Amino acid sequence: MNNRLTKLTNWLQAEHLDFAFISSTDNVFYLTNFHCDPHERLLGLFVFPHEEPILVCPKMELEQVKSAGWNYETIGYTDTDNPWKMVQQSLTKRNVNGEHLAIEIEHMNVSRYETLKTLFPHATFVPAETKLHELRMLKDKKEFAILQEAAAYADIAIDIGVSAIKEGATELEILAKIEYELKKKGIHKMAFSTMVLTGANSALPHGVPGANKITKGDFVLFDLGVIIDGYCSDITRTVAFGHVTEQQKEIYHTVLQAEQAAIEACKLGTLLKDLDNTARSIITQAGYGDYFPHRLGHGLGIGVHEFPSLKSDNDMPLQEGMCFTIEPGIYVPKIGGVRIEDDIFMTNEGPHILTAYPKELVIVS
Amino acid sequence: MNNRLTKLTNWLQAEHLDFAFISSTDNVFYLTNFHCDPHERLLGLFVFPHEEPILVCPKMELEQVKSAGWNYETIGYTDTDNPWKMVQQSLTKRNVNGEHLAIEIEHMNVSRYETLKTLFPHATFVPAETKLHELRMLKDKKEFAILQEAAAYADIAIDIGVSAIKEGATELEILAKIEYELKKKGIHKMAFSTMVLTGANSALPHGVPGANKITKGDFVLFDLGVIIDGYCSDITRTVAFGHVTEQQKEIYHTVLQAEQAAIEACKLGTLLKDLDNTARSIITQAGYGDYFPHRLGHGLGIGVHEFPSLKSDNDMPLQEGMCFTIEPGIYVPKIGGVRIEDDIFMTNEGPHILTAYPKELVIVS
Repeated sequence: MNNRLTKLTNWLQAEHLDFAFISSTDNVFYLTNFHCDPHERLLGLFVFPHEEPILVCPKMELEQVKSAGWNYETIGYTDTDNPWKMVQQSLTKRNVNGEHLAIEIEHMNVSRYETLKTLFPHATFVPAETKLHELRMLKDKKEFAILQEAAAYADIAIDIGVSAIKEGATELEILAKIEYELKKKGIHKMAFSTMVLTGANSALPHGVPGANKITKGDFVLFDLGVIIDGYCSDITRTVAFGHVTEQQKEIYHTVLQAEQAAIEACKLGTLLKDLDNTARSIITQAGYGDYFPHRLGHGLGIGVHEFPSLKSDNDMPLQEGMCFTIEPGIYVPKIGGVRIEDDIFMTNEGPHILTAYPKELVIVS
Repeated sequence: MNNRLTKLTNWLQAEHLDFAFISSTDNVFYLTNFHCDPHERLLGLFVFPHEEPILVCPKMELEQVKSAGWNYETIGYTDTDNPWKMVQQSLTKRNVNGEHLAIEIEHMNVSRYETLKTLFPHATFVPAETKLHELRMLKDKKEFAILQEAAAYADIAIDIGVSAIKEGATELEILAKIEYELKKKGIHKMAFSTMVLTGANSALPHGVPGANKITKGDFVLFDLGVIIDGYCSDITRTVAFGHVTEQQKEIYHTVLQAEQAAIEACKLGTLLKDLDNTARSIITQAGYGDYFPHRLGHGLGIGVHEFPSLKSDNDMPLQEGMCFTIEPGIYVPKIGGVRIEDDIFMTNEGPHILTAYPKELVIVS
């Protein structure tokens, strides 16, 4: 078994659990190297304390399971099979006990939970996240290299976007250009819907790019990331077009100062809440506290938003191998928004900043 | 209240339910016109039998809630608020009873289910899907027009893709071209990850486009869709490059015959399973039954795969207003795969085929 499965297995032994049922695309990929978005179909991995695991997936994915290098038992079901019945037969054959189970409580839906309870009427459940969050949070050197590569493509994407800025260009035209050039470079998938927001639209933390045209005096905010070997990057840069007001400058430099201060505060053992507080207090002191409506950042890896959360009530200390974003922002309705975001990988020598695109205020002319 | 909310409200009254808690992005959008992918954050809509609804979402989305035209109570929470506590206060203020509740059992996760059970310890639950599936399944004229427009862009996308085929071009290069041209036409988001698969890769029903180069004698399979005003299209076309063998021709014409026969079988009252059986029996008789490993199709609307499923055990009859795909395929390992997929809107005059790109075998030279 691979190292990750072994660690999960050891945890099952230590916790006296009969098995873990892992159901999310991301965690199945983490443990098996098989990536599958099953839509409404069932995907699942049964991991046992003392036996080989069992993967359940749509039959039409079996070729991809093989290509992923998965050599353990696999149950492939068709659209008219009842996959739970097939699972039950397989577990019965192995004489599996089902009294103490781990499930992904943040992923499994109520319908499947009730089915599982029917199959194992005496079962008690614990969150598989307890262990999986910890495993995925602490990345190894191989993951570092992949995340670094993903971040490098995010830098390239910002460069393409900034170069495409011109008077009258729409958000969507610039977005199209970015993704086109990336795909030509072999990037198959973005980590999330690319954002190119300008003017008043940039003041929406989760705005949607559209036909807004770039106009002199506007901010242009890019928030994007790519997926490399299943791992995400996530960068935000904001530039100005034509000219800026003193207030826009002040907003930009406040965000930049907050972002840099939070990065500088990254030391092994620093509490995540203190990173949020470091950035937030700078923004609050500048009088923009009400315009920073979200947490400082989030874990980054196979998931673009993953454990842990960098927010003002998280007491967890920074540890070697953590990868996360730092992304303060100020959004003033009608005037526009500024967010600056980097991907940070925590090493025992301090924070390694994976994203490298410059952060000084650029005024594109 | 809008028509959709009123219908849900009527159902709550008839079923003597205290409220429905709607939690999926798609159903919240269907009922409120507010579209929000909250990632791990909570999104929810409380609908009552005799009162105005309450929306819960991240505070930073409040501007978008307003733009969507939502005028009822909205609870906006920050990353450090406990949204459930805020919900509880609001429900307590309204003296809401919580004994008989409807939840999305195919969406709500176990963690939130347990939270809800803590807030309402005496609650019994019924699936909100019972009503929501039915409501969303039967589309009105406005939805027809949107779906028709989305399908027209899918046709355009196939045309762009077929025109981009040339010897040595990679799957990803062609995919990049398709999405670039669509974005320039104002399409913000694809309905799912665009597939351009060639050669042996086309034999994987859910293959991933990459660096495979188009070579003479290969099939090129396109499966893609766009989102217009929140509604999806979904088309598949397969063309050949350079030349084809007799077996490739036979496979293509078998799939085409199966697809056309299933469309011809679309009459009000026909059972969905009979559509699947019509196509499947043609493929089976031609000796390729084992190479058609998936159902015939699926409902289409706000979700790219939605209720109902067109499979051989679904006894539901075809009804006016249903929109769905018909997409038989034959996938022969190493030789390649063919799938042909149209979007069908069922009217009282018969099936209206939304997608119009030609289906006769094209050999691109």
